[in-house]
Amino acid sequence: MLKTPKVGTLRTIGMGPGDPELLTLKAARLIVMTPVIAYFAKRGRVGHARSIADQLLSEEAIELRFEYPFTTELSVDDPRYLADMGSFYEDCAGRVASYLDAGQDVALLCEGDPFFYGSSMYVFDRLRADYPHETVPGITGMSGCWTAADLPIAHGDDILCVLPGTLDEDRLTERLQACDAAVIMKVGRNLPKIQRALRRAGLEDRATYVERGTQADQRVMPMTGMEGETAPYFSMVLVQGRQRPR
Amino acid sequence: MLKTPKVGTLRTIGMGPGDPELLTLKAARLIVMTPVIAYFAKRGRVGHARSIADQLLSEEAIELRFEYPFTTELSVDDPRYLADMGSFYEDCAGRVASYLDAGQDVALLCEGDPFFYGSSMYVFDRLRADYPHETVPGITGMSGCWTAADLPIAHGDDILCVLPGTLDEDRLTERLQACDAAVIMKVGRNLPKIQRALRRAGLEDRATYVERGTQADQRVMPMTGMEGETAPYFSMVLVQGRQRPR
Repeated sequence: MLKTPKVGTLRTIGMGPGDPELLTLKAARLIVMTPVIAYFAKRGRVGHARSIADQLLSEEAIELRFEYPFTTELSVDDPRYLADMGSFYEDCAGRVASYLDAGQDVALLCEGDPFFYGSSMYVFDRLRADYPHETVPGITGMSGCWTAADLPIAHGDDILCVLPGTLDEDRLTERLQACDAAVIMKVGRNLPKIQRALRRAGLEDRATYVERGTQADQRVMPMTGMEGETAPYFSMVLVQGRQRPR
Repeated sequence: MLKTPKVGTLRTIGMGPGDPELLTLKAARLIVMTPVIAYFAKRGRVGHARSIADQLLSEEAIELRFEYPFTTELSVDDPRYLADMGSFYEDCAGRVASYLDAGQDVALLCEGDPFFYGSSMYVFDRLRADYPHETVPGITGMSGCWTAADLPIAHGDDILCVLPGTLDEDRLTERLQACDAAVIMKVGRNLPKIQRALRRAGLEDRATYVERGTQADQRVMPMTGMEGETAPYFSMVLVQGRQRPR
C-alpha cells in the first residue's frame, strides 16, 4: 500500500494594524508553532508584517522574504504593473509550495486582515485549490485608524463605504454623497483631490485624517487643518457617520 | 493642598466575532486585569460578549449585566424605540460612571469592533468627555464571516460598501450597483428583498450567505441556494469584489 505523502498547511495570518498587542491569540499561537514564516517587504525595509511578529519568531524559524519589485506608486491598472506583479506573486506562490510539498507548514503573514485588500490573497488564490489552508482574520488598518482617532465610525443603519483615493474627483464626490460614513484609503498624492471631493460633498467638517494609526508615531488631524500638507500613501481619511441622538 | 480623587478608566474592548481565540492579546490582558466587567445581553441569554470572555474572568470580577429592553426587531427610526433605548443607555452609563467615580476601572465588552456599529458607543459617547478612556479594536463580525466563507472580499482598487438589509429594495439595488464588493448586514426577514435586489443588480451569482461566522455552528451557502430559506437577524450576505487576473 502506498503511503500518501503529507503536504503542509498554508496558514494566512492577519497581523493587524501595527501594534503587536493587537495580534489575536490565534495568530500568536500559530506564528510560534509554524516552522516557515513568509512575508512581503519593500526593498530596503524590514517589512511591516515581519516587524509586528518580531517578538514571536524563534531563531530556528525559516524566513521567506518576498520583496516587492516596485517601490513607486504605479497605477494598478497599468498593464506593465499587472504583468510584473503577476510573475512576482507566481514566484512567491512557488516558493511557498516547495515547503508545503515537503510537508512543512507555512505561515504567510499579512498586515491588517488578509481577505481585506491584502497582498497575500494573490498567493492564497494560487494555492488554495491544491493545499490544506487556514486563514486567521486580523484587525484591519481602518479599524486601527478610527480607534486611534477616538472616532466611532458607524452607527445603527449607516451606510459605510470604503473608497480608494485613486478614484477621479467626480466619482469620489458622487460616492461620498451616497454614503453616511466613509473610509478613503490610499491618500498620498491624492490628498488635494480628496479635499476637493469632500468639500463638494459637504463633508469636509466631518472628515479626519489619520496616519500610522496604533503606531508610536501616529498622526491624527481634522481634514480642515490639512490644507497644504502632504500625506504618505498608506494614510486614511475617515468620515464619521450620522450622529443620532440616543 | 487638596488631593484630586482618582477616577477609574473606561476600557471599551472589542471581543471579535465569536471564537475566543480571535481576541487580541491586548483585550485578553485588559480583561484579566480590570476589576469591573460590563456587557450587554438579551433577556434570557448569557450575552455573546460575556460568553467570549468566559475563560478570562476571575471569580472576584464584578459583573455589570446590561439587559436590552427589547428582544424584537423594532426599526431604529421608530421614536418609541429611540426614546426607550436612550433611557436604557443613560442608565448603563450611570452604572458604569458610579464605579469610575469610585476609582475603579471598568471594561465594557463589545462584540466585534466597538466603533463599528457597536452598542457600546452609546455608553462611550456619554462618558468620553468626563473620564479617561481607552478603546481596543476587535475583529469585526464581517471579517469573521468572510474568513469563515474562505472568501477574499476586496482587492486593489475595489469599492466596498457596508449596507443595512433594512434599506428599501430600490435603494439597496442602486447601492449594490455602485460598488464592487458589498457586505449586507441585518438580514433576518429582509432576506427575500435582499435576494430581489441582488438579482436586479446582477450580483446574485457572486453573493454568499453566512450565519454565525467563526462559531461552531456556522453556516455558509451560495445565495442562489437560499431560495425559500429563512435567516436570523445577525446573518450577513457577502458580495465578492472584482477578481482581477494577477
